[in-house]
Amino acid sequence: MSSTYGDKIKLSVFGESHGGGIGVVIDGLPAGERIDFDAVLAQMARRAPGRDKTATPRKESDLPKILSGMLGDVLTGAPLCAVIENTNTRSQDYGNLLSKPRPGHSDFTAYVKYRAANDIRGGGHFSGRITAPLVFAGAICRQLLERRGVRIAAHIQAIGNARDALFDPVSIDPALMTRLSASSFALIDETAEAKMRAEVEAARMAQDSVGGIIECAVTGLPAGVGEPMFDGIESAVAKAVFGIPAVKGIEFGSGFALAQLRGSQANDPFRYKNGSVVTETNNCGGILGGITDGMPLIFRAAIKPTPSISQPQKTVDLQTGENAVLEIHGRHDPCIVPRAVPVVEAAAAAALINLM
Amino acid sequence: MSSTYGDKIKLSVFGESHGGGIGVVIDGLPAGERIDFDAVLAQMARRAPGRDKTATPRKESDLPKILSGMLGDVLTGAPLCAVIENTNTRSQDYGNLLSKPRPGHSDFTAYVKYRAANDIRGGGHFSGRITAPLVFAGAICRQLLERRGVRIAAHIQAIGNARDALFDPVSIDPALMTRLSASSFALIDETAEAKMRAEVEAARMAQDSVGGIIECAVTGLPAGVGEPMFDGIESAVAKAVFGIPAVKGIEFGSGFALAQLRGSQANDPFRYKNGSVVTETNNCGGILGGITDGMPLIFRAAIKPTPSISQPQKTVDLQTGENAVLEIHGRHDPCIVPRAVPVVEAAAAAALINLM
Amino acid sequence: MSSTYGDKIKLSVFGESHGGGIGVVIDGLPAGERIDFDAVLAQMARRAPGRDKTATPRKESDLPKILSGMLGDVLTGAPLCAVIENTNTRSQDYGNLLSKPRPGHSDFTAYVKYRAANDIRGGGHFSGRITAPLVFAGAICRQLLERRGVRIAAHIQAIGNARDALFDPVSIDPALMTRLSASSFALIDETAEAKMRAEVEAARMAQDSVGGIIECAVTGLPAGVGEPMFDGIESAVAKAVFGIPAVKGIEFGSGFALAQLRGSQANDPFRYKNGSVVTETNNCGGILGGITDGMPLIFRAAIKPTPSISQPQKTVDLQTGENAVLEIHGRHDPCIVPRAVPVVEAAAAAALINLM
Amino acid sequence: MSSTYGDKIKLSVFGESHGGGIGVVIDGLPAGERIDFDAVLAQMARRAPGRDKTATPRKESDLPKILSGMLGDVLTGAPLCAVIENTNTRSQDYGNLLSKPRPGHSDFTAYVKYRAANDIRGGGHFSGRITAPLVFAGAICRQLLERRGVRIAAHIQAIGNARDALFDPVSIDPALMTRLSASSFALIDETAEAKMRAEVEAARMAQDSVGGIIECAVTGLPAGVGEPMFDGIESAVAKAVFGIPAVKGIEFGSGFALAQLRGSQANDPFRYKNGSVVTETNNCGGILGGITDGMPLIFRAAIKPTPSISQPQKTVDLQTGENAVLEIHGRHDPCIVPRAVPVVEAAAAAALINLM
Repeated sequence: MSSTYGDKIKLSVFGESHGGGIGVVIDGLPAGERIDFDAVLAQMARRAPGRDKTATPRKESDLPKILSGMLGDVLTGAPLCAVIENTNTRSQDYGNLLSKPRPGHSDFTAYVKYRAANDIRGGGHFSGRITAPLVFAGAICRQLLERRGVRIAAHIQAIGNARDALFDPVSIDPALMTRLSASSFALIDETAEAKMRAEVEAARMAQDSVGGIIECAVTGLPAGVGEPMFDGIESAVAKAVFGIPAVKGIEFGSGFALAQLRGSQANDPFRYKNGSVVTETNNCGGILGGITDGMPLIFRAAIKPTPSISQPQKTVDLQTGENAVLEIHGRHDPCIVPRAVPVVEAAAAAALINLM
Repeated sequence: MSSTYGDKIKLSVFGESHGGGIGVVIDGLPAGERIDFDAVLAQMARRAPGRDKTATPRKESDLPKILSGMLGDVLTGAPLCAVIENTNTRSQDYGNLLSKPRPGHSDFTAYVKYRAANDIRGGGHFSGRITAPLVFAGAICRQLLERRGVRIAAHIQAIGNARDALFDPVSIDPALMTRLSASSFALIDETAEAKMRAEVEAARMAQDSVGGIIECAVTGLPAGVGEPMFDGIESAVAKAVFGIPAVKGIEFGSGFALAQLRGSQANDPFRYKNGSVVTETNNCGGILGGITDGMPLIFRAAIKPTPSISQPQKTVDLQTGENAVLEIHGRHDPCIVPRAVPVVEAAAAAALINLM
Repeated sequence: MSSTYGDKIKLSVFGESHGGGIGVVIDGLPAGERIDFDAVLAQMARRAPGRDKTATPRKESDLPKILSGMLGDVLTGAPLCAVIENTNTRSQDYGNLLSKPRPGHSDFTAYVKYRAANDIRGGGHFSGRITAPLVFAGAICRQLLERRGVRIAAHIQAIGNARDALFDPVSIDPALMTRLSASSFALIDETAEAKMRAEVEAARMAQDSVGGIIECAVTGLPAGVGEPMFDGIESAVAKAVFGIPAVKGIEFGSGFALAQLRGSQANDPFRYKNGSVVTETNNCGGILGGITDGMPLIFRAAIKPTPSISQPQKTVDLQTGENAVLEIHGRHDPCIVPRAVPVVEAAAAAALINLM
Repeated sequence: MSSTYGDKIKLSVFGESHGGGIGVVIDGLPAGERIDFDAVLAQMARRAPGRDKTATPRKESDLPKILSGMLGDVLTGAPLCAVIENTNTRSQDYGNLLSKPRPGHSDFTAYVKYRAANDIRGGGHFSGRITAPLVFAGAICRQLLERRGVRIAAHIQAIGNARDALFDPVSIDPALMTRLSASSFALIDETAEAKMRAEVEAARMAQDSVGGIIECAVTGLPAGVGEPMFDGIESAVAKAVFGIPAVKGIEFGSGFALAQLRGSQANDPFRYKNGSVVTETNNCGGILGGITDGMPLIFRAAIKPTPSISQPQKTVDLQTGENAVLEIHGRHDPCIVPRAVPVVEAAAAAALINLM
């Protein structure tokens, strides 16, 4: 496995859904920087399940415990290790999943790769729960970025057929960035919430799930960040964002729509504005030749619908070698897109801090 | 800069459009494997400019010269260095571009990052010509992959509004793979050629350019290749493919279309077929949890229109600090999509050989 | 900081002497391998302070707690995280050390690098205690190596002027390897113990400390392991072994003695023995061109005397900017060489598992 | 193979003794820095064979040709590729070596690892000639270091039993550094030359070779360079220096002599001198906890005698499977220690530039 990311600031994520704990080691953080731990917890709360629309107080078990790398609220420069204990480690019956892989899940590929050794319980290391330490790490990284003037915020661009407005690619209101990066159902146009929730409810009622698109903006990046070719911004951000389970596509700026444009439409004209070079449009998403041009960095990530659904599904029985039907009981989250918003932001933060 | 890729088989690409030469060092190749050099040259010819629809014999200057790593046609296991000499090193007047960055090009970001030191001539290290050594490296990698049963082929899925058919994601004819991977205008449905060429001609006549989409398939990958999280197939392939100038988006399987699907539609049911586990559909593009499931790996890359166009364009004059208009004379390639097909295949080959 | 090692099997060590815990994440371990946890604990006991010559039962607080990567006693293939809790986190007065750096310690360099942010308590991340997770990781790696026929054992070659016998470089008795790798005062010639303990006692009585040399042998390595140049066996082992605080030198085979030899003396003649190629002597330490030749791998590491001594020492006062005298009270270990033996073995194990 | 070094500034060395060329790609060099090419050539001349005591003009074929990364004499920031053509590519009879491996050489291990694919001619990629591109890369790196106040120089500390004086570890005359780093037979005490040359001549007359020790000093390093554990100065320098064929040991500061010292002798007392913290002695070689303390960095490398000697040697015949005798005709360099001095400096430069 390779659950590590980064050269300068290295993340090493560990943990299985039902093991002793999940967490992350972050190596290479600068010494002496103060961390606002409440802000870290606020980011983690955005990702945590069951938080949206609820007022239940934070459960103790979700608190990341800092084992190293901080003295009080200051980074020491030594590797930071944060652990979140698992409380749900009861020995449920997962034998079913071991023999009948869930369609759309990693059950089958993990079985082929790790055989009986794989910890299937709750999805093991492939569980969405593994994104919690990523959000923790991203929350640290984004504080360092903010101190350098860089802001990251994302929103739910689409759930099923319901759509939010898009970021204005050439000028993003700082107040919008602030609001989005604190929201648990992040929308530019908040009137889109009703139709999105309707999509989720319809999926839930059908014992089904639904996917979506997350759009992310990064403001305040100076021009000149990123390296040509394989360490360009697109390569680095894509590698990090595809590390999130469920992401199946990414596009920068106008992305796939560029395929139908002419060069005269796609090229972003340069202009002077208050003595600085800006572009009039931002089809390139703030990146030329892999390097930032000083405009907002914009990208979108496609999130597939949660594969866990309660409907009976066609699968195979790896024990008997015969086709089979799988029924998964219990409550399933019909849409993880809102909770994936802070995860996408965290992946972007981890990628960018490594290039600055 | 960081023009290197890979851990196991490391590529280090070098060269500028108008310097002494361009090339690549490949470190980690297995000793004793025979390389079909004609097949390598055939791949390079697919990428070379001016080859499509022409019968001009290969010019000597395009031949990659092997400096090390091969004895006869056999890999020695030592680092392989291949160099392609530049013949067009004449001192054209690029002062214009130094002061007036081309919209959509890396001129401006390279200027900010490297200042006067940047070799602007012909785009320097950012030139599309730098993809030639990548195709060379990919041609070596794909021969190693083919020997392990893995085939890679891509086609022009779209140029502007003209579209080709799509790969059948669950069953791809080996003969199609063979035909596509040798074609200089690769199409599944060859009747699409006329309308695509019409799109290109229309752009040319308008002194403009046009973008497109390339769809790539990899067959014969066993189940179990790839690592979870940041070294998953999607992360690895995306990092490599975004290393190609002009790529602005990538999606795996049904990609962005998954956002509008329900889980019951998106999940690919498992079935036994001739004793092996297959999926009935392939919305996941052959990848679950970052790991191959044994079905064809399918992805699409969005190619932006070539930024170099002959129309006057709005830009800035970095010398005078004023807005300006740029006119670039000379012939420009109105569409690089056909030539980008082997480059996308090469990037995929480099990514996959590192995970096997 | 960069407390990570390895490409294939990556170690990420974390923790400070007096923080919440110390530990390691190991990424890339093979799935399905059974781990003998008692054997792991036995290795850790060899390193733990105060174990030698005592029969005190193991304190609970020293037990590594596995948070992830194992199901029962089997590796799952997911990253393995082990944590050892710190119990000694009381707020002793370390202000003294912050202003008066201990000669021979990292206090001064850590102060320059991390300033006030550095966790000085107990040496922080620079503490010898940080070698505990390294021994843990090495214990896992050596079990994997043993299963492939590779054995690692080291002994105290010298403490001060007292010396042990040397390994026979061409033929090492497996029983000796077994005995050494379980010993807490590892000696080939056990009669050397008395004079070594006398050296340690003499240093203790003088409120001083004493250094030594550790010799390490690895048997069972097949010929052909290692890569030329920067990933050769010497480079890899040296990088890992110098990661241990207190190591100031390393030599392979006859090492520095080769400087005075003629080629005709240094070259190890090849011979056939039972159908295999062996060398009659082993001045090269089992490595030619960075690659194993199938003979025992032999290296020696120089360990400097523990810098913490009770004698008054000349230092500076960083607060007042004046020369000063430092007196450190409390018990100090006058010789860490015996306890460093399993740490050197662990570093070798981590290096070799990455090359196999 | 892995002939690459570095994270920040990456070296990728390629080439075989008798292939088309040898060279290096350096990725990550800063844009805009001017390179004194004559100074680069001067370093390469120190390493080149047959230069010592001769006045033969430089042969054209030894000139490194810059293919990329420089515009005039200025670094562009793009990867720099330098190639040295091989002129001696005649097809000599190496079949002998293929079947009868030279004792002390990599012939046997390369045979086991690469089998028939290995390019045995002249030692192939294992040839000492491969250190030429390393000296080239080091010459670039040392110019960047010098501009930051860091100087590197080494000398022949010993050849056989003949010894030079040692560096004064606490205060090194800049004029000495200048003299040594330009010398082709670098000695602190130049009266040692006669006895050293006598050692070499004695070896030559005996159709034998002789080893030695190189001592290297780095001045001007600020305190605080290096990372704890595996990216400490010792780990980084050792990994680079062991990349040089023939190096079998390395020690920092007092190195192996520390084993016999007491802590009270080994610890270097801190003192204020002109407002800066210095140490009165320098047993630690300028490194505490893997991090520079601002004093000169001192290390010594053991160089084994050249394995190529004209005496008959015992070996095996891999073709017949029988013991055999090998006689190598032709002129052999009886001592490579003087020429290895600039190679050791180059390796140190490559290591240090990656930590600054």
